[in-house]
Amino acid sequence: MSLARVQNFSISLDGFGTGEGQSDQAHFGHAGDRLHQWMFGTRWWRGRHEPGGSGGVDDVFAQQFDRGIGAEIMGAGKFGHPGWHEDPEWKGAWGPNPPFHTPVFVLTHHTRPPIEMDGGTTFYFIDASPADALETAREAAGGQDVRIGGGPTVIRDFLAARLIDHMHIAVVPILLGRGVRLWDGLEGVEEDYQVEATSSPSGVTHVTFTRTGR
Amino acid sequence: MSLARVQNFSISLDGFGTGEGQSDQAHFGHAGDRLHQWMFGTRWWRGRHEPGGSGGVDDVFAQQFDRGIGAEIMGAGKFGHPGWHEDPEWKGAWGPNPPFHTPVFVLTHHTRPPIEMDGGTTFYFIDASPADALETAREAAGGQDVRIGGGPTVIRDFLAARLIDHMHIAVVPILLGRGVRLWDGLEGVEEDYQVEATSSPSGVTHVTFTRTGR
Repeated sequence: MSLARVQNFSISLDGFGTGEGQSDQAHFGHAGDRLHQWMFGTRWWRGRHEPGGSGGVDDVFAQQFDRGIGAEIMGAGKFGHPGWHEDPEWKGAWGPNPPFHTPVFVLTHHTRPPIEMDGGTTFYFIDASPADALETAREAAGGQDVRIGGGPTVIRDFLAARLIDHMHIAVVPILLGRGVRLWDGLEGVEEDYQVEATSSPSGVTHVTFTRTGR
Repeated sequence: MSLARVQNFSISLDGFGTGEGQSDQAHFGHAGDRLHQWMFGTRWWRGRHEPGGSGGVDDVFAQQFDRGIGAEIMGAGKFGHPGWHEDPEWKGAWGPNPPFHTPVFVLTHHTRPPIEMDGGTTFYFIDASPADALETAREAAGGQDVRIGGGPTVIRDFLAARLIDHMHIAVVPILLGRGVRLWDGLEGVEEDYQVEATSSPSGVTHVTFTRTGR
């Protein structure tokens, strides 16, 4: 069965999935890279770039990012800073070889032809509801799971539509004070899930939601 | 040295310290007792009422509630539901022997004479700034620590005034969706503290803030 999964999605202790003031120079606004330092410290992350890194609980969670994933769905705000659709040359912020290595479906009202990148990533631009986007991504995933890649409003929309099967949120012990909240309007969503929390020596707490009995 | 401490203060995963719709029948509004079930399950809590209970990390945190505490400061909204000050007989929601056993300073614009309860609790009603209230409570605490007892807006005010030395927040894995948030307007507050997170088998994560180098 192909699941819809959120992996390695980081929020601040006060619930912000991105900071304020996003731009092409600051993808997470005033949050900078503080929401993702825990991940940069793992062996999994460094294995792509340099030796070393921690091999504990942060690492084993981080590894789930691409395990069994056959496609990703992301929001327009993750694909680029506001206004990217006016730049016909914009191909995302990840360079020629993005870290997805699967089809990636970008939810946008400004569709354009697919962009094939190095390393197996192809960006498709679709204007679709969460349910329809998930159906399209599942077909492309060839029986594997679909990662719901964010940003916060996209994850919130998929949660509200009860489409998420498994979710891993990393709560980082900082207070951003402003930005985009993940949890708004989701009262009682946890009732459909087994929720577990695992704190790490890094200070991050990994919270997992696993759907029960669907 | 007498510290200002927050102990056993519970919030939902989306940051609410109390629910919506508080009344004399529902002190935490629609949250009911869901924010405090972790505490009711501890040996420390049950020791007062019945045998049994868990003796793990929830219990050792819960025990800190009254250890070394010589006074409490609480907000008007913790002392009673909206409108309590119009009831001259109102003595709080804890019965004749409240669980504080020290002087308790209630921050209110509607002051009244002190109320002496059984078991060592005396309620004093003061109209004061956080700093002045803390000075008054410290005098009453006889060299021991002062607990900042909540609700969420009171803790927020004391944090914003940089008056908290140690804080223990229990994050409960539920999404309340509405109520009073603890973290609003506190961007960067964690920079003054060593922050640690400890998750419990109960699902709760204990987050502690310990002031560094003051």
